[in-house]
This record gives sequence, structure tokens and C-alpha cells, in this order.
Amino acid sequence: MSGIYGGALFGARAPRYVPRVEPIHAVRWSPAGEAVRILDQRRLPAECVERDLRTLEETREAIATLAVRGAPAIGVTAAMGLVTSLLPFVHEGGRALRARLDAHAAVLAAVRPTAVNLSWAIERMLRCARAHADAAPGALLDALRREATAILAEDRAMCAAIGTHGLALVPDAARVLTHCNAGALATAGIGTALAPVYAAHAAGRRPRVFACETRPLLQGSRLTAWELARAGIPVTVITDGAAASVMRAGEIDVVLVGADRVAANGDAANKIGTYPLALAARAHNVPFHVCVPWSTIDRATPDGAAIVIEERGPDEVRTIAGVPVAPADADVRNPAFDVTPAALISTIVTDRGVFTPPYSFTL
Amino acid sequence: MSGIYGGALFGARAPRYVPRVEPIHAVRWSPAGEAVRILDQRRLPAECVERDLRTLEETREAIATLAVRGAPAIGVTAAMGLVTSLLPFVHEGGRALRARLDAHAAVLAAVRPTAVNLSWAIERMLRCARAHADAAPGALLDALRREATAILAEDRAMCAAIGTHGLALVPDAARVLTHCNAGALATAGIGTALAPVYAAHAAGRRPRVFACETRPLLQGSRLTAWELARAGIPVTVITDGAAASVMRAGEIDVVLVGADRVAANGDAANKIGTYPLALAARAHNVPFHVCVPWSTIDRATPDGAAIVIEERGPDEVRTIAGVPVAPADADVRNPAFDVTPAALISTIVTDRGVFTPPYSFTL
Repeated sequence: MSGIYGGALFGARAPRYVPRVEPIHAVRWSPAGEAVRILDQRRLPAECVERDLRTLEETREAIATLAVRGAPAIGVTAAMGLVTSLLPFVHEGGRALRARLDAHAAVLAAVRPTAVNLSWAIERMLRCARAHADAAPGALLDALRREATAILAEDRAMCAAIGTHGLALVPDAARVLTHCNAGALATAGIGTALAPVYAAHAAGRRPRVFACETRPLLQGSRLTAWELARAGIPVTVITDGAAASVMRAGEIDVVLVGADRVAANGDAANKIGTYPLALAARAHNVPFHVCVPWSTIDRATPDGAAIVIEERGPDEVRTIAGVPVAPADADVRNPAFDVTPAALISTIVTDRGVFTPPYSFTL
Repeated sequence: MSGIYGGALFGARAPRYVPRVEPIHAVRWSPAGEAVRILDQRRLPAECVERDLRTLEETREAIATLAVRGAPAIGVTAAMGLVTSLLPFVHEGGRALRARLDAHAAVLAAVRPTAVNLSWAIERMLRCARAHADAAPGALLDALRREATAILAEDRAMCAAIGTHGLALVPDAARVLTHCNAGALATAGIGTALAPVYAAHAAGRRPRVFACETRPLLQGSRLTAWELARAGIPVTVITDGAAASVMRAGEIDVVLVGADRVAANGDAANKIGTYPLALAARAHNVPFHVCVPWSTIDRATPDGAAIVIEERGPDEVRTIAGVPVAPADADVRNPAFDVTPAALISTIVTDRGVFTPPYSFTL
């Protein structure tokens, strides 16, 4: 367990996270359990609208259109959506129900093929069905619901553990800079990068957050600002280009970001715009921490150079909310992620503990 | 002339800039000289519309609403607009005309009080009127028109000289990164930061430009991409947060930016988001050059810490083209400029020559 300090060291001192307002649920069961209730993130921040997903098509469309987003939240939604999509068919008999499960799983897995959590959650549901090969239709559905509920609960526990492990990184009245949205809206719980902030808030430490707006899709201004303000945590929105001078002015104590993949050497791929924050943090001696589920650490990828960076469509840059902001035929480069080298990362916080350089991810 | 190399050294080798397409005129006289013809930048990039300014109110409104923008272009427009605003009153007699000149000058000077070029150009027009204290109204107007035309011509010559002096910094097939718009749309000529690019293009060097979109007001995607594409120079738009990873990928050979004020030690204030580009350029050994009119060098300001940074309104960040992109009541920090320390600046290119560190601005 070299390079790691975990719950035993300081986690025991950390208070359990108790939200002071009704927490946001990016995804949960409807009260009667017949639907997946999501917070429709396409409508934020203008409107806070929940939607109930019942059919396969409703779940597929919600994931495809980013009504629900964030790798952890997508996996949870798909697992739960498989259950609700099968409810009308319980009387068809076991064989037909299992055939439907396979078909529905294939549809959902194809929606966002690069989201590791999505295929992982769906595969886990199929394993559960195989483990109940002799179960009657009703018993099979009960087992699938228990599995989906376990995935949901584990995701919440993962977030809470990151909050506990990361609490020491957010001292009293800390001014935290973050990027994109790695908060409650991206998970079933209190987020990854924002989990230590929520934990510090619950502990009475009065953290304050600067949210980079995060072009092109503005998850920082649209989502992070909204969820923190709703939780009573002071938040200030800045453009991505303003972060370096805010750090230079001495107004940031710590940077907390998430990651989509962490390589074996600690290089971290995260939303485009993260790497320049790490450069500015180093220039101004501001600690820079990456907060991720343990499952995000990909020990099969040796370093950042081996991470393929998704290039997204040009219209995300050419237009904003449908309004043209560049010539319609402008050439655009739109990498969705960048890689922050491990040398610029102060610690990597996971639900299994906090890792320090040189990074070696063994437990 | 320590720390400077100028025209005599390599400028003589540089070809004169000859545009290959009809150049953009951000501001010029209408053919009959009765109006100031501007390119309405509020409509770009959707529409390329010219407007003729005749009355005081038309000129005031064009400057106030950023139909014309860029410190050099604003000064030129104000000087020329003073002339056209007085034309209907030439028969009122000399005393009345001079009183109107003073009144109109006061109105225009108040529109954007921080733009140094605006008050400088207006003051020059008033000096011209004082130098013709005994002139008849017609002769006075002729003198004022000659002065405004001289300001216009000097601005064009300034741009061309920056292009000549900066040409050596843009080698064959150079990939140039720039920020905001310091191009033809910001001046009466071929711009400041983009002048060496236009000169290299004219010299057959086939430069290629990456334009940072430049949140919050998107001058990079709206204006720089438009004017370069129109001139036949390949241009690629990227978000501000993508610049560092594009540099890391080895795709940028040189960074060229403008500045709004350069302090005596070489610290340069420019559009917000410039400083993180300088940090990334240093991290990846990419030369970082600041291109400015000599008049932008403020030897009365010792260093960047003495430069007051304008903080603009929150709705520039909360909304884009009128569309809300953050909670309506979100707290926002919106500094309009940042300061790049002289230590990160490879050279400072002016119309009077190229300065190298350590910066000492004497001729």
C-alpha cells in the first residue's frame, strides 16, 4: 500500500456527509419503483425538471441526448432502466423475458460506446440474470432490481468515500477551483471532484468554489454552479481563460477535478481545459488534486500517451445553444479531453484512499 | 537602441504587404467623403454589412455598441466622425463651428473612457483646430479632414510596419496561435498581432492560424476566424481551454498576441486568457510574441502590478448571444484583461522595431 494513505489514517476523523438541504438526485427510483426518476440536465439551469423513464426508448433517449450524463450516473441509469423496461413483459414467461433483457441491453450499450461505466453496469446486470437462470420471471425481475439497486447504492457509497478521503484537502474557508461537472449531477451521490467540497461544507468548513464555465458544453456554468448554489455553497463562475489570473491573484487554495481515465503512471485524462489549469496551479504553487472512483484507474494503460482522445463535432464550438458564434464553415478542432501529466498532480483521491506521487496503484 | 533590432536589420528584406483579395476596411472614408464607412462588427460573422456614419449620434452609437472596436480603430473612427458630424454646420460661421467641435469631442471622448487611443485621437483633432484659429469655417473643416486622414494613414502605416518587423517571426508554413482579435478588424490597417501573419501570407509563406475563441465575447471565433478566412489564410477555431494541449501535441510554432498596455518592464496586459497561453507556450518551448503599436508601451507604468484590470459585467459570462448559460443569479468574476509577465514574453514587436529581453523601451 505504498503511496497511499486512507481511511485508517484520517478518514475516521471525518464526519459522515449529511446534506443540509434536500440533496440533488441525478438518478433514483420513483417512489413506487416503476420508473427511473432522473433530473433532466438538458433543461438546467433554466428549469429543474424530473423525468420518469419507463420504456427502453425513454431510457435510451435520455442517455443519448445527455438528459442524464456523467459516466457513473449513466451506468446506474442503464442498469435501473433495464429493470423498468422489462416490467410490462413479466407475464410473457422466462424465456421471452431473458431474450428481451439481452435485446434491451444491446440497445443501451450501443448508445455511448466509450463510457466504460455503461458497458460495465449492463454486463453486471446480464451476469445477474445468468446467475438466476432457473428463476421464474417475477423472481428474475426481483433479482435484477436488487442488482440495479446495489449498483445505485455502491455509486453513492463511492462518492461518500471520496468525500471522506478528500476532506483533509479542503481546509477551513478553502477557495476551491474546479472544472466541468464532477458533482452530484454526474453520479448517483455527491459526485467525485465535488465530494470533498460537500463533505467540507457538511463539516462546517465553509468552502467556496470557483467554477470554470468549461467550453464548449459549459458544464461548469450550467451544472456545477447550479448544484452548488442549490446546496448553499458559495460559487463564482469564471471563464476558462480567467482561471490562471485568479490563481495568480492568490484567490485559489486548491484545485479539485475529476477524470475520465487515469493511466498506470498517474497521467489523467479529463475534460478539455484541465491541463492548462494544472500548469497554472504549478506556476502558483496551488495543490492540484484529481478525484476519481477506483474503477477509473486503468492499470492496463501505461501512460497518457496511450489514451485515445475523442474528437467531437465542430458545431459544439461554432454554435452555443444554437446561436452561431463563428463562421458556419469555420475549421474547428474540438478535442473532448486533455491529459494532465502525473508530474503536475499533487494527489489522486479515490474511494479506496488517497494516492501520492510517485503513483503506484496497488492496494 | 539596446535590446532592439529593427528595419535596418531584416526589415529591408521583407516584401511590402500586398493583399491578394480586396482587404477588409474596418474604417475608411465613404467614396464622396461625407461619411465614415465602418464594417459593422456586431453583425459578424453572420453578415458582412458596412454602415455609413454621418451624425454625431451615429458615430457615438457605433463606438458605444462595439459596431467598431479595437483601440486603434476606435481612435480613427472618432477623429473622422468629428469631421462628418460638423459638415451640416459649416454655414453657421467659425465661432459656432468651433463650439460644436468642442461639444462633439466631449461626447465621443466619454463613450469609452479607458481606450487610450480614443482620447489621444480626439485631443489631436482639437489641437489641429487650435492651430487653425483664424481659419474660415470651410478651411477649418479642410484642415480637420486632413488631420483625420493623417490619423487613418498613420494607423495603416503602423500596422504595415509591425508586419514588416514581425515577418521574421513567422517562418515558412508556420502554425501561429493567436487570441482575441488584434487583426484588420481592430485597426484601419492589417492589424497588430495578425500583421506579421498577413505579411508572411503576402510573402508566400503559407502561414496557418489557430484562433482561440476568446470567451466571453468570442472575438477569436467571431472576428479573427472571419477575417483570416476571407483573406485566404487557413484558420482553425479552438476553445481557449484546448490551446495548451494543441501546443503539447507539437502543433504550434509561434504565439502572436496583441496588448492593451505594455509596462516599462515589458509586462503586458491583454485580453483575459492570454496569460495561460504564455504559461503553456513556456511549458512547450513555443515562442510567445506580443505585437503592439509603439503608443501602447506605457513607460509611466513600471510593471504589470500597476496596471488596473477592468472588471466587466456578469452577463457577458452568464449569457451568450442572449441565451442564458448559467443560473441567472450566479456570482461571476469577469476580468477583461490579464497580465503576462515579461519573463514569459520572447519579444515585443512594435512599428518601430522588435524588442528583446531584458526590455528597455528606448529608441
